[in-house]
Amino acid sequence: MRTDPTAAIAELKSRFGDRVETGEAVRCAHANTLTWIAAEPPDAVVWPLTTDEVAEIVVIAARHRVPVIPFGAGTSLEGHVNAPFGGISVDLGRMTRIVQVEARDLDCVVEAGVTRPQLNAYVRDLGLFFPVDPGAADATLGGMAATRASGTNAMRYGTMRDNVLSLKAVLANGEVVTTGGRARKSAAGLDLTRLLIGSEGTLGIITELALKLHPIPERVIAVACPFASVAGACDATIEANETGLGLSKVELLDALQIRAVNFHSKLELTEQPHLFVEIAGGEAATEEQLRQFREIAIRCGATRFEWAADESARRRLWQARHDAFWSVKTMWPGKSVIVTDVCVPVSQLARCVDETVTDIKATGIPAPLVGHVGDGNFHVLPVFDAGDADSVAKVEGFLDRLVERALRLGGTSTGEHGVGQGKMAYLERELGAPAVGAMRAIKAALDPLGILNPGKMLTGRNTN
Amino acid sequence: MRTDPTAAIAELKSRFGDRVETGEAVRCAHANTLTWIAAEPPDAVVWPLTTDEVAEIVVIAARHRVPVIPFGAGTSLEGHVNAPFGGISVDLGRMTRIVQVEARDLDCVVEAGVTRPQLNAYVRDLGLFFPVDPGAADATLGGMAATRASGTNAMRYGTMRDNVLSLKAVLANGEVVTTGGRARKSAAGLDLTRLLIGSEGTLGIITELALKLHPIPERVIAVACPFASVAGACDATIEANETGLGLSKVELLDALQIRAVNFHSKLELTEQPHLFVEIAGGEAATEEQLRQFREIAIRCGATRFEWAADESARRRLWQARHDAFWSVKTMWPGKSVIVTDVCVPVSQLARCVDETVTDIKATGIPAPLVGHVGDGNFHVLPVFDAGDADSVAKVEGFLDRLVERALRLGGTSTGEHGVGQGKMAYLERELGAPAVGAMRAIKAALDPLGILNPGKMLTGRNTN
Repeated sequence: MRTDPTAAIAELKSRFGDRVETGEAVRCAHANTLTWIAAEPPDAVVWPLTTDEVAEIVVIAARHRVPVIPFGAGTSLEGHVNAPFGGISVDLGRMTRIVQVEARDLDCVVEAGVTRPQLNAYVRDLGLFFPVDPGAADATLGGMAATRASGTNAMRYGTMRDNVLSLKAVLANGEVVTTGGRARKSAAGLDLTRLLIGSEGTLGIITELALKLHPIPERVIAVACPFASVAGACDATIEANETGLGLSKVELLDALQIRAVNFHSKLELTEQPHLFVEIAGGEAATEEQLRQFREIAIRCGATRFEWAADESARRRLWQARHDAFWSVKTMWPGKSVIVTDVCVPVSQLARCVDETVTDIKATGIPAPLVGHVGDGNFHVLPVFDAGDADSVAKVEGFLDRLVERALRLGGTSTGEHGVGQGKMAYLERELGAPAVGAMRAIKAALDPLGILNPGKMLTGRNTN
Repeated sequence: MRTDPTAAIAELKSRFGDRVETGEAVRCAHANTLTWIAAEPPDAVVWPLTTDEVAEIVVIAARHRVPVIPFGAGTSLEGHVNAPFGGISVDLGRMTRIVQVEARDLDCVVEAGVTRPQLNAYVRDLGLFFPVDPGAADATLGGMAATRASGTNAMRYGTMRDNVLSLKAVLANGEVVTTGGRARKSAAGLDLTRLLIGSEGTLGIITELALKLHPIPERVIAVACPFASVAGACDATIEANETGLGLSKVELLDALQIRAVNFHSKLELTEQPHLFVEIAGGEAATEEQLRQFREIAIRCGATRFEWAADESARRRLWQARHDAFWSVKTMWPGKSVIVTDVCVPVSQLARCVDETVTDIKATGIPAPLVGHVGDGNFHVLPVFDAGDADSVAKVEGFLDRLVERALRLGGTSTGEHGVGQGKMAYLERELGAPAVGAMRAIKAALDPLGILNPGKMLTGRNTN
């Protein structure tokens, strides 16, 4: 059900001038889904500079019953920025002010369009960093909050859920809501901060964030070790967790992903499942952790144990991990690659991965696997031919079985990528009708006209 | 606005028999507020044994438009369990089943009436523990989730917000909602888990929780050091945070609180502001942290630095801290003691405490001060004569100024005790009308009849 956006766009143009664009290239660039989901461009794109301008845009859109789709860097993976009913893409990419940094409180306040690298460059000289690091290097912090982003540091530092102190957001009625201040904790009222984190633009448009910062560790050690089996790598992770080692990162790459990483990053790792591990802390603490983790890894079947504390070797290893997606693109040029994501209790991970690898072999499509094994979250990257219906059908069947498997093993359909359009079909299966009903009641209460990012998460393709 | 509960109680009795009680002693025991707020007993108390029974109770109450007040251990501090409009107190104290413990996943599933000591006794032999430790030793885990409880371990392990994986709860319509599974993280849908945590029984009745567990640290060291000033103690805390030491607990006790602790726990601490600190981890890591923290403390003006690694000395110190409330009761027998709570950014803590101590002196009532200084959260314990109107007025004025001060310094009216009845007046002042409006919209959407714990947090005394 589309509403004619003409009047809304005219009003936006008279207010925001050339900060409103309707050209096809711009519109298409704002419907980049990085998945197999077809791009659905908005009718117009507008670039606000302040929270109040975002509020004005929402009021105009509400008056004309036109959808509003918040846009950060467009690196989300489940069609979050698509405009299935048309509407206005609100690009927060020009709201890039770092409003406040309080080193003594280990926090900062930033506008939603600030990217992770921008913030980290800004606070590095203070000995601080912001830890959440999704695969998309240039993701905006507003977008990361809206999708409850996570990444390799989540094991030690948590996800966006844990690193946002409070938010400023524009609600569907045009009101600007402030969910709290910079206090480290609060028990004052309903947790609107966490309700907005992961709401994917369906309840409000995040315009400003108070974030936790963390001291850059004194010393960092990178470890890479191959295992004969995925089960051994998982056992080592579980034992490290049980021992309370406090590892910073524990990443699993399967043999095929190692082949791609070797090819792309000019490494010579053994083509076996690997754990990439990061240990961080004081001099003595890191030595102790390294020794303890080495014992655990070898007991669990690590066939080698290599580590590096100097920055260039560490960076090389972690860059290779970060480039996992691109390594797959490079190894299979011209093919499409989907990055999908599920998460299971860590004890079920080896089984989930083994069954998935068997499924991949049976399906006959290459699909490297890489994961945040420390919290049971992993990604599979099926490589396929987007123009070939049979290939697409195979991938879709595989993705469906992957989610079914994760749910059967007590997990979730998405550990960190979110629901968007791609995982809508699974939400009720995962959480049950009462939970989804409660979510829809909240959505209807806060956005009765259904203008905020319709067709995602809770509202289907045929309703607005 | 009271509804006649007679018919509802009759129906409950016919269904639950002698698990429904209406005797005065029982009703009064369920309106224990531990504050200056007058007790407002419910009309009846019912003890369900299962989630489905809780759902039945809610359906009966809804049919008769009678309020439902969830009750755990009754140790909350802001009148959460009062029944200002009468109604049914639902005591979850008989739902004490530990449903599942998964050591390899470091998690468990428990019913809402399980207490923290019960859970910790159960998992100790597995080398695990549940870290959230509010002052009330026998608090139930359901109540702790409902009030977003916190405590001395929050600095390292987080609050209930961070340690609940998912919840089962009964909504106002009688539906049983499951907010997730045991996966360590999920991006599937709105964060109903966090929305229910801290909702104080106004959105649903929590009946079951999946919780994170943590490995018991290899070694624990307790430190006590006196400072010439509160500012010095705060500086030491901030510097330890900035260095990323990862201390487990950092507690501040002012000189008056030390006097009470000495009196009650037979200690001989210098009557100066103290930091009580806990360091936990591996052998080498704890040695390193101890050395680093000692340097910081002495640089910031610690006049002594005492530490103990053996269990009995550690327990003695922390027991004294835990008994802070009782030490005040013992030192001023026959007097009333309020435990109030605010939280400010850590950089503002010394100023907030100093201004508060000045205010205490001017007001002329003794009020020891103790706080989770690591996260800027502190408690003041005014000692007064509940029967003397002047004394009560003085305390009320002091409490009001304390909250104003915390808000002025960028803090919150409550770090961990919640809103209940006692902090309702501050919520809109703290968060603004749009935030409270959004909370009320959510409340109205999920509980249109207003039967769940009315008169708390969002709904005033004169509306239901």
